[in-house]
Amino acid sequence: MSIKSKIRSIKNYPKEGIVYRDITTLLKDKEGYKDTIDTLTEIAKEYDVDLVLGIEARGFIVGAPVAYNLNCGFVPVRKSGKLPMDTLNGTYELEYGHDELEIHIDAIEKGQKVIILDDLLATGGTSRCVAEMVEKLGGKIEAFIFLSELSDLNGRKEIEKYDVRSIIKF
Amino acid sequence: MSIKSKIRSIKNYPKEGIVYRDITTLLKDKEGYKDTIDTLTEIAKEYDVDLVLGIEARGFIVGAPVAYNLNCGFVPVRKSGKLPMDTLNGTYELEYGHDELEIHIDAIEKGQKVIILDDLLATGGTSRCVAEMVEKLGGKIEAFIFLSELSDLNGRKEIEKYDVRSIIKF
Repeated sequence: MSIKSKIRSIKNYPKEGIVYRDITTLLKDKEGYKDTIDTLTEIAKEYDVDLVLGIEARGFIVGAPVAYNLNCGFVPVRKSGKLPMDTLNGTYELEYGHDELEIHIDAIEKGQKVIILDDLLATGGTSRCVAEMVEKLGGKIEAFIFLSELSDLNGRKEIEKYDVRSIIKF
Repeated sequence: MSIKSKIRSIKNYPKEGIVYRDITTLLKDKEGYKDTIDTLTEIAKEYDVDLVLGIEARGFIVGAPVAYNLNCGFVPVRKSGKLPMDTLNGTYELEYGHDELEIHIDAIEKGQKVIILDDLLATGGTSRCVAEMVEKLGGKIEAFIFLSELSDLNGRKEIEKYDVRSIIKF
């Protein structure tokens, strides 16, 4: 079975008209999880990378094993208020209001090459926010790599100056 | 350098008298991260396991690569309100008030053998909460495995009927 077929689609969640793509059914399937991480790792290996960044929280589930496979360090990009040392913060728009992400200012050294992993590319707002933070810290973004992508939302336009890769398109 | 020496200790955080153990310095260090996951994996391999559970959010960073290495499925135990399907919820005490975790009710099949990974064993309240949830779903807990443990807090007493392993003690 393909990776895509192991993702559960939930109609009208979280609201009418939306189809939510639930990856928990893929993650708990041992062949599905292995295939997913192996495929993401193969893509990541095309880049010369110092660090893998994962975006809280599902980005940790796909990003951490890829960092391990590449023998790279892993940097968590976290929701606001979770990191103990000095942070750089970024905001991104939600449908109503905004949300905030943060990264330790000592997480990336100037010139380090990074890839950014997350489970889903939707509108691209989160990704653009992270890109701005990484560049402020002097990191060089080699690629964004996503497990899946909602093509209709065209989130790629928000991060079009970078390599954007995904293994599944909805 | 040892894994322990790569964890940053922050005095008087989040409040006076507390020493916070910050694992981000370990995670971003490629040898440190690899050693950590390899050591956790060696421990996990002592058990016969169907699923690895990771507790949101740092438990994802240590649990997901271990699941991958064991060729197991990964199940996220999440903060309240993050999972789209029917969930079982559990609460645990905080210093003031309580917090809630949840797991999909279809995440574990009756009789499946699981290990539970998290970064830190402190008071053990979170772990006990997760243990109760897993057992309600019919899962069999083979072990709890932690990156580190605050020995003075004796969190082991909360989960004393299980194997409890950690690689670092503070």
